[in-house]
Amino acid sequence: MTAPHPGTSALLTDLYELTMLQAYRACGMNDTAVFELFVRKLPPQRGFLLAAGLAQVVEYLRELRFTRDEIDWLATTRLFSDDFLASLEDLRFSGDLHAVPEGTIVFADEPLVRITAPMREAQFVESRVMNLLHYATAVASKAARCVLAAGGKPLVDFGLRRAHGAEAGLLSARASYIAGFAGTATTLAGQRFGIPVFGTMAHSFVQAHDDEAEAFLRFARAQPSNATLLIDTYDTEAAARKVVEAARALAAEGITIRGVRIDSGDLAAHARRVRRILDEGGLARAQIFASGNLDEYRLRDLVAQGAPIDAFGVGTRMNTSADAPFLDCAYKLAEYAGVGRRKRSEGKASWPGRKQVFRSFDAQGRFAHDVLSLEGDAQPGTPLLAPVLRAGELVAPLPALAQIRAHAQAQIAALPDALRALDEPAAQYDVVVAPALRALADEVDRRTRRSAA
Amino acid sequence: MTAPHPGTSALLTDLYELTMLQAYRACGMNDTAVFELFVRKLPPQRGFLLAAGLAQVVEYLRELRFTRDEIDWLATTRLFSDDFLASLEDLRFSGDLHAVPEGTIVFADEPLVRITAPMREAQFVESRVMNLLHYATAVASKAARCVLAAGGKPLVDFGLRRAHGAEAGLLSARASYIAGFAGTATTLAGQRFGIPVFGTMAHSFVQAHDDEAEAFLRFARAQPSNATLLIDTYDTEAAARKVVEAARALAAEGITIRGVRIDSGDLAAHARRVRRILDEGGLARAQIFASGNLDEYRLRDLVAQGAPIDAFGVGTRMNTSADAPFLDCAYKLAEYAGVGRRKRSEGKASWPGRKQVFRSFDAQGRFAHDVLSLEGDAQPGTPLLAPVLRAGELVAPLPALAQIRAHAQAQIAALPDALRALDEPAAQYDVVVAPALRALADEVDRRTRRSAA
Repeated sequence: MTAPHPGTSALLTDLYELTMLQAYRACGMNDTAVFELFVRKLPPQRGFLLAAGLAQVVEYLRELRFTRDEIDWLATTRLFSDDFLASLEDLRFSGDLHAVPEGTIVFADEPLVRITAPMREAQFVESRVMNLLHYATAVASKAARCVLAAGGKPLVDFGLRRAHGAEAGLLSARASYIAGFAGTATTLAGQRFGIPVFGTMAHSFVQAHDDEAEAFLRFARAQPSNATLLIDTYDTEAAARKVVEAARALAAEGITIRGVRIDSGDLAAHARRVRRILDEGGLARAQIFASGNLDEYRLRDLVAQGAPIDAFGVGTRMNTSADAPFLDCAYKLAEYAGVGRRKRSEGKASWPGRKQVFRSFDAQGRFAHDVLSLEGDAQPGTPLLAPVLRAGELVAPLPALAQIRAHAQAQIAALPDALRALDEPAAQYDVVVAPALRALADEVDRRTRRSAA
Repeated sequence: MTAPHPGTSALLTDLYELTMLQAYRACGMNDTAVFELFVRKLPPQRGFLLAAGLAQVVEYLRELRFTRDEIDWLATTRLFSDDFLASLEDLRFSGDLHAVPEGTIVFADEPLVRITAPMREAQFVESRVMNLLHYATAVASKAARCVLAAGGKPLVDFGLRRAHGAEAGLLSARASYIAGFAGTATTLAGQRFGIPVFGTMAHSFVQAHDDEAEAFLRFARAQPSNATLLIDTYDTEAAARKVVEAARALAAEGITIRGVRIDSGDLAAHARRVRRILDEGGLARAQIFASGNLDEYRLRDLVAQGAPIDAFGVGTRMNTSADAPFLDCAYKLAEYAGVGRRKRSEGKASWPGRKQVFRSFDAQGRFAHDVLSLEGDAQPGTPLLAPVLRAGELVAPLPALAQIRAHAQAQIAALPDALRALDEPAAQYDVVVAPALRALADEVDRRTRRSAA
């Protein structure tokens, strides 16, 4: 029997959410709580983040429920009272969700989502909401850097095999597509999300033949309109010459070779030599596709060298966000029972209250600065957070993926130059904390210090 | 409607597996293929790898099948012939699987699994087999380093929220438990794998109260035998004194506080001051639990400083294997139709043939060196790969998780000292390539060069 998707189990949570829920219940604390998820500090290699993963959060919140089996299993831990376990049967998400739209660029301290709900609901969803938003945002941000580096050349997600598990493979295809990738090799992302799927051939296909040229002929005949031949199994340039010969034979059959792929060695040098061989062999329209350990840094170098590469497969380093595989994000209580809350833990203090981000633009339509303030404290600029769920129901249909992708493209186009730099961004984007928010933080601190005295 | 687990869909694969299958079918190539999965080169921060993820690979291979919906969706891509799509209906894994047992230490070039099956099966499973084994092995290897660094103190996996998706959250709990962690906060891993689950409280519980001391009393009353109180929300030492007071009040009710958790600041300095406060307050038996940005390097430092910390929560950096978030692994054709195969791509050459690893031990029972040779070429030492599936069926029941964990413990204990170093391992472990394997590689090269001439 196939186990259900771990992501759809209410048990995919940190145990402490449940121990806290039991304690809240014991003392009758179920007033409205407001939690916000934000990134405390960007990794040094990131000048901006691209928000993603909201559609999955909405799906999770709308489908949240405990099954009988799950509650029965919790009983076996002997950590919970029967009364508490019975109370889990009707746990649903009935609250409000505000969020920055997917594909929006965000910075440190800016809430990506705000959840307003009875405490048990708002608290319980912490682990999975973070698990979903954190990964999608980390990958979309990495992928956006690849798109910036590629100078308009198409990128395809090749990273399923080394993504961290099934869901990472699937959701990184979506996050990178939002960031501007042309598509993915992950077939399931085609079915689930309608993302264009791409595929070439593996070395094994060539290796399984005694003759590389025969492998090329056979593959092209099986994919008459779509064959991209992998040419680095043995000797890249020798293989390119075989492609030229094969193309001559195939032309008589009405078959065109779409292109070749190079997956190892000095990609720029190989691409130059292969381009010449293809051009001289009458295959000027055959494309060169390159892959192998690519990321934004290598893409930038290949583009700067003017390598005659038409498109890139980008895998592992993008799907794992290898140079910054996690974000310092937090899901923090900002208000409970109508009163602002924050923690002051060393290096991890958070801002209280229901916050809003107001973004100002310069004359060219580029981001000028953001103001972080309270929802009720209108500031100049465009507010970024908008309602998504009200009392657990969608306020409006979620945007289509194409719409999210177009939004991301516009956001990336509006980035100030200093934030596009791939290396440690020299300038940090200005997120101004408004006086009203500082005043609330002071008030909260005075109150908690008084109670501590 | 809840979407099924992405990991159980046959479409969780790279598109090229399918385009190749179509080409193999078109030319009638379905002889026996042998593929092996290995790591080409260890990351510079790793002296060894701990193999994990085999149970999930076995589950995947045994459950592999296309649904009608999946085949119908593939038809919409217009990349495949009706005849080929119909052939997917009966795709099952009917081959053999040999593997290094989970919890075994392995090195570069050593096969973790060998798959021997008709070409279409052996080729098709590549993407998901790698996706599963790569992540579990990367995390188990990282977790083993944490265990080595912690000097016997218990570690608990806290990393669900920043693991890369649902499956990564679940499987990293399993991989780290195999490596020697005491348990996990990921509740689902308790239900699915029987791993001990642990949980304390979050800052939000304290923040939601106007009075921190009141929060402590309430949490302890709701968890009378199990309360670990989080004391760094505002002022760590002040909170420790409140814990002492709370403990006095609670003693009258028969409630004991199990311990406290510190999650920020200088953990060693705080732990020393808190230990003194607890001891002087009569809470000598209350444990100190520490968490927050921990990994093997910080664990080593805390242990070296003699910090009075009883147990650690280790999260993000372990679950993402943050200093080496991917392994340079490959799944390569080693034999087809009875003939050895390898590729010679620059920097990515592979060894041909059905291989076996023979491990020798020194007089103290520690690893001395390995020999990589062909299955039929017996060498001194213990062979590491053993049959797991034969014709798609289990040769024997898979070991229980406790058994795998004990095996890993014994393997870690048998590591030579040089390989235990956390920093760039000075010594590299000796994996000797046997003459028989070199001879086969030469023969394969002569053959493929001849055909290329």
